[in-house]
Amino acid sequence: MSGELRIGLAGLGTVGAGVAKVLRARGNALAWRAGRGLALTAVSARDRKKDRGIDLSGAVFETDPLAIAERSDVDVVIELIGGEEGAARALVESALRAKKHVVTANKALLARHGAGLAALAEKNGVSLKFEAAICGGIPIVKALREGLIAYEVSAVRGILNGTCNFILTQMEATGRPFAEVLAEAQRLGYAEANPTLDIGGGDTAHKLTLLASLAFGTVPDLAGVAMTGIDKVSPADIAFAGEFGYRLKLLGVARRTPNGIEQLVHPAMVPARTPLADVESSFNAVSADAGEAGTFFFQGRGAGQGPTASAVISDLVDVARGAFGPAFGRPAAELAAPRREPAEARASAYYLRFQVLDVPGVMAEISRHLANEMVSIESMIQRGRAPGEPVAIVMITHEAQHVAVVRALKAIAASDKIFEMPCMIPMETA
Amino acid sequence: MSGELRIGLAGLGTVGAGVAKVLRARGNALAWRAGRGLALTAVSARDRKKDRGIDLSGAVFETDPLAIAERSDVDVVIELIGGEEGAARALVESALRAKKHVVTANKALLARHGAGLAALAEKNGVSLKFEAAICGGIPIVKALREGLIAYEVSAVRGILNGTCNFILTQMEATGRPFAEVLAEAQRLGYAEANPTLDIGGGDTAHKLTLLASLAFGTVPDLAGVAMTGIDKVSPADIAFAGEFGYRLKLLGVARRTPNGIEQLVHPAMVPARTPLADVESSFNAVSADAGEAGTFFFQGRGAGQGPTASAVISDLVDVARGAFGPAFGRPAAELAAPRREPAEARASAYYLRFQVLDVPGVMAEISRHLANEMVSIESMIQRGRAPGEPVAIVMITHEAQHVAVVRALKAIAASDKIFEMPCMIPMETA
Repeated sequence: MSGELRIGLAGLGTVGAGVAKVLRARGNALAWRAGRGLALTAVSARDRKKDRGIDLSGAVFETDPLAIAERSDVDVVIELIGGEEGAARALVESALRAKKHVVTANKALLARHGAGLAALAEKNGVSLKFEAAICGGIPIVKALREGLIAYEVSAVRGILNGTCNFILTQMEATGRPFAEVLAEAQRLGYAEANPTLDIGGGDTAHKLTLLASLAFGTVPDLAGVAMTGIDKVSPADIAFAGEFGYRLKLLGVARRTPNGIEQLVHPAMVPARTPLADVESSFNAVSADAGEAGTFFFQGRGAGQGPTASAVISDLVDVARGAFGPAFGRPAAELAAPRREPAEARASAYYLRFQVLDVPGVMAEISRHLANEMVSIESMIQRGRAPGEPVAIVMITHEAQHVAVVRALKAIAASDKIFEMPCMIPMETA
Repeated sequence: MSGELRIGLAGLGTVGAGVAKVLRARGNALAWRAGRGLALTAVSARDRKKDRGIDLSGAVFETDPLAIAERSDVDVVIELIGGEEGAARALVESALRAKKHVVTANKALLARHGAGLAALAEKNGVSLKFEAAICGGIPIVKALREGLIAYEVSAVRGILNGTCNFILTQMEATGRPFAEVLAEAQRLGYAEANPTLDIGGGDTAHKLTLLASLAFGTVPDLAGVAMTGIDKVSPADIAFAGEFGYRLKLLGVARRTPNGIEQLVHPAMVPARTPLADVESSFNAVSADAGEAGTFFFQGRGAGQGPTASAVISDLVDVARGAFGPAFGRPAAELAAPRREPAEARASAYYLRFQVLDVPGVMAEISRHLANEMVSIESMIQRGRAPGEPVAIVMITHEAQHVAVVRALKAIAASDKIFEMPCMIPMETA
């Protein structure tokens, strides 16, 4: 390995500043691991004058991020701009074309354009690394790409969005409704002013897409994710989950099934006292079923300066050591086209909640519609008999076709004895 | 990367057979990751004729493992013989001297001779890899060596021995004493005929030594581990642990303290509902405090064919890709001499159990001796007042010096009102 690895850093927000700090503070320790020095030679951000509290001496400042990709004194570009198109995409493409390695935290970009960018990196003989894009500091990309490779991975499941897990944990602890807890999370800085990407499940879908590609050797398939956010979750469902011995979590799940690959993002019931169920607050976690090697579980901080900078630095040292390899674990040309599981094949046990008028015949009506669709009931709770109040009927079904349950609920909702659209939440194994 | 990576496999037991099977079954997928083919060219075992149910065609069979290290058609030697001296050590040394990479699962060998072997590997320009030596399939070596490197790791804690965790989990579930559960574990094949290395803590100490070296950049220091096994653990202590909100686990713990590095193997009280406390049966787990990146937790199968073969294959693919790097994350010459925390500096909160004669003055006597040594009590339970029966007094202390508590217990044990040597178990944070 010859000479220092020369780094161009585009984006000096929280994570970028963290990366710069670590490069300054831990030069020796990192050089030992890398077999060579790591030198920050160029940085880019919009505002040249802003005081970021970090020492950038020795690094050229560029206001145009694309200039970083063109510099002859840069071997690797760190892209921390964000966004699936625009400056981030242009920078990554220019850098790869200029035969510079790329390290990025950009899950949206990779979920949409990952296969093409991986091919571009290969064509130019450089590496594309994205440990920081999934679960911050948890070395899950490395684990799937380099660790759990002896056997076929059959499923990955994750709590991939700290904001959602924080909100669900708070709703559980306080019994307060979603909107209130979201507003509080926004005040505390745990949720963004525009929280759609988090609470709608989009951010989880980006990360799930990348996990699935790493696990199954398929082209990242964002459009193949069936997605439900947490905005409709009610404190009642969280409380009933507890009574049935479950906790409600927003999961990303990718599975090989006999009918294809299933990718789901949804609030799900997870059996209590399992590792995924016990993930609290803003932590992230992933479990992976790795064939004969068994099931593995990884937990840690998924966001923030330290965890994300940790992942970027890990990628940088890999690049410095020359530890290249295809971005998604196999050459881009060998990534399989994902065969999506057809919607009709999707099946699970489901939690169902009905708000009903407490009059004779209501249970018979619900049961009849479920039976018509071959949905059978495993267990049931009925609560809340204050006169005039709606009654909650809650049940867990045996495994049933997703489309059949949806049809049954639609028929049930048409009844005048039902107060609101019934709630339907899948049960997940942990 | 030129040509196939040619593999010599020494040891065809459960794990060796598993590795051979994966190499046969998953050649393509592994070649994609490795950038080249993986070819099993030579194997070695004692009995040439034994039917192992695996296809070894194309591989030369050597009855002398050392012959593997000498073969010109071998690039990497997999050592699965075991044992800290003898054939295993001779093979690894010869292989490294012959400029062949080494992949090993041998924790005992590395815990004793790791620094010397790492130096030998570096001198010969080859790599020494040992993912399979710690926690089987959990990619924890990779995580500490390549993943969590941006910040200083301040502590690692692990459930590193599946046999001990199985026994403790069974004792907890059934209330049966250690000897009975051990005998059952032996019948079921979960414990060896000679279980000393497991239940005495030696196996955990080997693995802890390697984790500490990876985490802190120090020479592996097996002799610096203070070790207590699980053979004295009683069902009573496990039950009291539950009452206080803890679970009893055999932990390996390595910490940086202001006074040096502390390495402990001991049954410890772990707060209930934390990831380490929830590790069941024969699973392994590690948590690592990685500075500003936060605390990470890893869980999986720590032994058996699939998990261990998974780790060996991961190392092989790294070798094939040319992803070398120093064995312990920094060059052997840069590994720091471990500054051991002096025994007098060791401090913790402790769980104490006394079996006493229920007569006036016994509590006063215990309290006086603890007070003399400046040990103060945080909480207490007293139980079992059947006349004539000994009474259990159980307490949890505030943080106290280990040596002071030991002195106090010695003085208390000398009393004629005390039935047996008091039990002392440290409390660990999770």
